[in-house]
Amino acid sequence: MPLTDPTIIPVELGDRRYPIVIGSGTAVEAGDASGGTLGEHLLGSLGDVSHAVMVYDAAVKDSAAASVQKTLQARVGRVDALEVASGETSKSIDNLGRLWNRLIEVNADRRSVIVAVGGGVVGDLAGFVAATYTRGLRFVQVPTTLLAMVDSSVGGKTGINLPGGKNMVGSFWQPHLVWIDTDFMATLPDREYLSGLAEVIKYGVIEDAEFFAYLEDNMQAIVARDPQSVRHAIACSCQSKARVVADDERETSGRRAILNYGHTFAHAIEATAGYGTMLHGEAVAIGMQMAARLAVALGKCEADLINRQTRLLDNAQLPLVWPQANPEAMIPVMARDKKVAHGKLRFVLPDRIGHVELVGDVPVDQVRFAIDACQ
Amino acid sequence: MPLTDPTIIPVELGDRRYPIVIGSGTAVEAGDASGGTLGEHLLGSLGDVSHAVMVYDAAVKDSAAASVQKTLQARVGRVDALEVASGETSKSIDNLGRLWNRLIEVNADRRSVIVAVGGGVVGDLAGFVAATYTRGLRFVQVPTTLLAMVDSSVGGKTGINLPGGKNMVGSFWQPHLVWIDTDFMATLPDREYLSGLAEVIKYGVIEDAEFFAYLEDNMQAIVARDPQSVRHAIACSCQSKARVVADDERETSGRRAILNYGHTFAHAIEATAGYGTMLHGEAVAIGMQMAARLAVALGKCEADLINRQTRLLDNAQLPLVWPQANPEAMIPVMARDKKVAHGKLRFVLPDRIGHVELVGDVPVDQVRFAIDACQ
Ligand SMILES: NC(=O)c1ccc[n+]([C@@H]2O[C@H](COP(=O)([O-])OP(=O)(O)OC[C@H]3O[C@@H](n4cnc5c(N)ncnc54)[C@H](O)[C@@H]3O)[C@@H](O)[C@H]2O)c1
Ligand SMILES: NC(=O)c1ccc[n+]([C@@H]2O[C@H](COP(=O)([O-])OP(=O)(O)OC[C@H]3O[C@@H](n4cnc5c(N)ncnc54)[C@H](O)[C@@H]3O)[C@@H](O)[C@H]2O)c1
Ligand SMILES: [Zn+2]
Ligand SMILES: [Zn+2]
Repeated sequence: MPLTDPTIIPVELGDRRYPIVIGSGTAVEAGDASGGTLGEHLLGSLGDVSHAVMVYDAAVKDSAAASVQKTLQARVGRVDALEVASGETSKSIDNLGRLWNRLIEVNADRRSVIVAVGGGVVGDLAGFVAATYTRGLRFVQVPTTLLAMVDSSVGGKTGINLPGGKNMVGSFWQPHLVWIDTDFMATLPDREYLSGLAEVIKYGVIEDAEFFAYLEDNMQAIVARDPQSVRHAIACSCQSKARVVADDERETSGRRAILNYGHTFAHAIEATAGYGTMLHGEAVAIGMQMAARLAVALGKCEADLINRQTRLLDNAQLPLVWPQANPEAMIPVMARDKKVAHGKLRFVLPDRIGHVELVGDVPVDQVRFAIDACQ
Repeated sequence: MPLTDPTIIPVELGDRRYPIVIGSGTAVEAGDASGGTLGEHLLGSLGDVSHAVMVYDAAVKDSAAASVQKTLQARVGRVDALEVASGETSKSIDNLGRLWNRLIEVNADRRSVIVAVGGGVVGDLAGFVAATYTRGLRFVQVPTTLLAMVDSSVGGKTGINLPGGKNMVGSFWQPHLVWIDTDFMATLPDREYLSGLAEVIKYGVIEDAEFFAYLEDNMQAIVARDPQSVRHAIACSCQSKARVVADDERETSGRRAILNYGHTFAHAIEATAGYGTMLHGEAVAIGMQMAARLAVALGKCEADLINRQTRLLDNAQLPLVWPQANPEAMIPVMARDKKVAHGKLRFVLPDRIGHVELVGDVPVDQVRFAIDACQ
């Protein structure tokens, strides 16, 4: 099987069903006898599209964005490319307004498709633009960070930040296609890549014990970016996320909350560390360690879970502790967290590898203990 | 039957089903033995709400907004009131950003409900805020113009304008309740009120011949704002709109396009007259006259339709002609209109009172004739 044979994972959302396609070389290698690339083939499936607007991260201008633009030109013809500066601050009202106005200037209409090429920042921003311009355009995610490939590009959460809070506004707006090509992260710095592995490991803990075991056996190859292993890890992660999203598209049943494993702690770490000092995945790694400690302290699971998780995160070269962790600063942040209902502390905690549950009314003392244990 | 017995019209949208409640005195008269008003009763049906944010038009601060605020205070307790300046220019990115930021300041969360009190401007703006803040809050429409009561508050279209175009961005976001009280438009200037009657008459032409006949018999009472007649006219209009919206919530089947009867011409009239010189309903009245002329010229319907429509619009004190109408200025605008597919002129035209169809490929000469006929 050549590497270019893509893996296809459907996200089962009824009439909003869409495929996640995972491959390598899809922008350069032939997809069919007619000579088009696999990427062109994929975009051909979007239907009646007369215009593409590619929104891309400045960091991938000459790499992924250039490949995608070529593909769009071959398949759609009329293409406009709009650049977004790298970094979280681009998920702003200013950029949203700028992109909306640019869409008018390039005569976008309901037959235009928005194609996001970048990490979660560009995906979230461009997705929100797609959700709202003329009340909704078709949308393709082309993630270029590992985090975006395994997490943000799947599931339809889009949005921007407000000065007063991250991801405070947005829409649920499903893409029509998620086009993942591991080549698109060839230029991704190692620290960003490793950070994305925290979310990969998360899926193993929350709902796929077999995948967790696979990661234990193959983490070295994954860290070395061995193509087959990376693709398998991405595919299993997307499958996990797709399952959870199909169960609870709009976060109404509570099922989707399991994706927040480690995240209540992580958000408090990011907030108290000052946004930007730690990468999100690094905070998630430490947050998962705190959550695991908490689970064991509450008698929810065996101590061996901590051992296995610690070893795996360590093999992924992720941080396991945070010397500056301060319960007195973190707990008030957690009490304000969206996932914490009405002041009571609530956590997603594992009872074994491959299974988590939502635990409410957690005593503050135990939370303090879990944080202290990861200093 | 006391006036306060409300009429209830369901909008049948599956799990997004909601009622339109139409009454008078609902904010002051008892709704049940427990002593609460009908309005309080209504708001009680929203479920688990811990906070209300009322977004209101400055023009109704001391009238409708004061009544609604009292009702919210009685039922929800924690209420914040955010004012929006009167006028179309309030449907802007600036106001959107301002309201988003204000929601953080007042600690709105997923248990908050947004309540829009005003005309279509406030309804569209606050609805878009509700659609997007934390990816969606519950939302109540309390329309205070006739146009908003019979049109903009029903159907879930929300959004704002961009400098480059009206209603260019927004979401489909259905309210949980439309609370119509004819008392809330007691302060509405006559010109605004009459303008709203154009949309009322539109429903008769496009899909309710019986209602058209009712309007022919009762227009004098409606113009004089006789409460029973006004309520009946609002109820039939909402019923029409609810039927069309239930058939085609997101403008995908084409059915919803019938609501644009007269509007392709009206948009060109508004654009060439300069926004603000003519009220929307006034432009719609003239636009319907042009559309009726076009339909007859194309042999789609009998000339008598023009006579009946003319008489009814005239009885509603609406304009029938526009001396400055200039086909050479209007036609290029129509060719850019969203409803005109790819440069070909397309119109919603009646074949009889109570029925319209979408007619494509209309010769430009005939369009010119129809415009000239209404100078
Ligand atoms: N929508 C969701 O469900 C969801 C889920 C998780 C996270 N998010 C959001 O995703 C964002 C984080 O995503 P992220 O980690 O991808 O951040 P990011 O988009 O900021 O990308 C990280 C960095 O890598 C650079 N970059 C991206 N691709 C590159 C490449 N191929 N080569 C070189 N550099 C590259 C970017 O310029 C940036 O500096 C946050 O805003 C978060 O809120 C959304
Ligand atoms: N969402 C939809 O489906 C839809 C449908 C039609 C129109 N619209 C939108 O609705 C808007 C027009 O709505 P509108 O005609 O209600 O305009 P509007 O909201 O601007 O109200 C018209 C005027 O009446 C004033 N006013 C409102 N209620 C009053 C009251 N009770 N007493 C005194 N003054 C009052 C307002 O301050 C304003 O000056 C446009 O922006 C249009 O795009 C939306
Ligand atoms: Zn995360
Ligand atoms: Zn109208």
